[in-house]
Amino acid sequence: MTASTTPLALDWVAADWGTSSLRVWAIGADGSVLDKASSDKGMGKIGKADYEPTLLELIGQWIEGVTGPIPVIVCGMAGARQGWTEAAYRTVPCAPVSVDELTRVDTADTRLSVSIVPGLCQMKPEDVMRGEETQLAGLLAGNIAENAAICLPGTHSKWVSLEGGSVARFSSVMTGELFALIGGQSILRHSIGGTTDREPGSTFLNAANQALADPASLTASLFSIRARSLLAEASPEDGSDTLSGLLIGTEIAACRPFWEGRPVHLIGAGPLVARYAAALQQAGVEAIVEDGSGLTLAGLAQVRAGMKEFTP
Amino acid sequence: MTASTTPLALDWVAADWGTSSLRVWAIGADGSVLDKASSDKGMGKIGKADYEPTLLELIGQWIEGVTGPIPVIVCGMAGARQGWTEAAYRTVPCAPVSVDELTRVDTADTRLSVSIVPGLCQMKPEDVMRGEETQLAGLLAGNIAENAAICLPGTHSKWVSLEGGSVARFSSVMTGELFALIGGQSILRHSIGGTTDREPGSTFLNAANQALADPASLTASLFSIRARSLLAEASPEDGSDTLSGLLIGTEIAACRPFWEGRPVHLIGAGPLVARYAAALQQAGVEAIVEDGSGLTLAGLAQVRAGMKEFTP
Repeated sequence: MTASTTPLALDWVAADWGTSSLRVWAIGADGSVLDKASSDKGMGKIGKADYEPTLLELIGQWIEGVTGPIPVIVCGMAGARQGWTEAAYRTVPCAPVSVDELTRVDTADTRLSVSIVPGLCQMKPEDVMRGEETQLAGLLAGNIAENAAICLPGTHSKWVSLEGGSVARFSSVMTGELFALIGGQSILRHSIGGTTDREPGSTFLNAANQALADPASLTASLFSIRARSLLAEASPEDGSDTLSGLLIGTEIAACRPFWEGRPVHLIGAGPLVARYAAALQQAGVEAIVEDGSGLTLAGLAQVRAGMKEFTP
Repeated sequence: MTASTTPLALDWVAADWGTSSLRVWAIGADGSVLDKASSDKGMGKIGKADYEPTLLELIGQWIEGVTGPIPVIVCGMAGARQGWTEAAYRTVPCAPVSVDELTRVDTADTRLSVSIVPGLCQMKPEDVMRGEETQLAGLLAGNIAENAAICLPGTHSKWVSLEGGSVARFSSVMTGELFALIGGQSILRHSIGGTTDREPGSTFLNAANQALADPASLTASLFSIRARSLLAEASPEDGSDTLSGLLIGTEIAACRPFWEGRPVHLIGAGPLVARYAAALQQAGVEAIVEDGSGLTLAGLAQVRAGMKEFTP
């Protein structure tokens, strides 16, 4: 999990503590990644008392012999009410992260100085995010325009409109969770199978186009997947591609106010992002794929840089 | 389950064999219901070899001492591929039932003469129904107009357009199943609770109106139920009413081609039908509630009457 690191070189620790996992990075004074580690002890699996020991399990070697408090900057669900310490949402419109609105966490180990990056909330319509705000900060630290449309596909996809470097508004769409539930547990499960790891083909594109043209008909279209397997012996892979296309197409249609007239920065990698990019292309929208893996770390580094400015 | 019936009075047996249950009625020569019985041995719980014994368990007393074959007319999922004997779908447009297109079932007990009423299929867009076609026949046997819009709310709601007494087209909407899945198993389950047995109130109506005005946004609206419970401490009952309103409103909006410019015959009873009636009213549509309980029996009686005409 961890490797030997000269404690003296450690400047701070970055932590992405989500629902299902924890990832940590040891960062040197020059900003370089000295080491990294991960654990499956996500927020969904542990209680409040487990956070500090879980963190120390991963970073204990990094802080051996260290005296002064080491900043540990945490984003994600560790800041939820059921997490380590609740980090109250900041309300949009606002910058993705604010170095003077971090939530401090008391620890028994005095070598740790833990801060949690709060998530964002929106009051009308009501919405929340935790973790994505840090990726947005990472994106803004790069060369992205201060006004942009952003899509982060996933279990609960997020669509974001950045204006002047602030999050103006956002919307969560439960596409990934609906795909898993409908495909795995509804009557459609008999007509759905295989993986969605392959390139988006014509079945996917046809379904996405159908949903883009008539997004109001999603719930009236789903049962056709079952009927098609009964009447036309459509394959489980066809069923899977159709469900995926209908849900992603519906999501893109519903999020038109975010992308109309401008390209979409699509954060992530792999087959899922390829599907979103293909469906966006059907809608006539340019997709700029941004590799998601480094954005969380880049966003946490922005927070660390801000801390240094405030406490030089 | 069953009561004593004079075997001599029995003319035929009506059976509604669905996924989750079996209901049977003993019908006399004058069309009166002599007795009835039911079992939870629906199609989903039994294998092919279990059908005849299951039926005999319920109707054995009725046919004691009977010699000549007693017609048993069955509708529902017993005619599915995984059921007793597959009754191939009849393709719309067509009359809901056709007495010369019944599927005969061979039985070991020669006192039984079993016929299954086939379901209906539609090729474009693909759709299927099993059981509802018999309710439609029952409805047409009453005083309903031969051109009408019909809605049968349920796990998989059916919308039907009758033209000249035929089923011109229909559409299945997975509203009931989606409500159960999303409310019971998605992240929204933490924000949803209580029953939906109460009268449709303002939270339901507001959500239905929102969906009627913007049905394309369903998947983008669902997460607000979670966010509202986090940010505004909305009650689980509010969450439940909102989910119900969003799904029913979306269904009605998607099925506009069925109801536009005419009233809807709403088949069923109880709180669910009250919700559909209230949501239809929000859309400016008149709902004519038809009690669903007797329609299956009325439809099966239509088949029996047709048999007598063909074999007097």
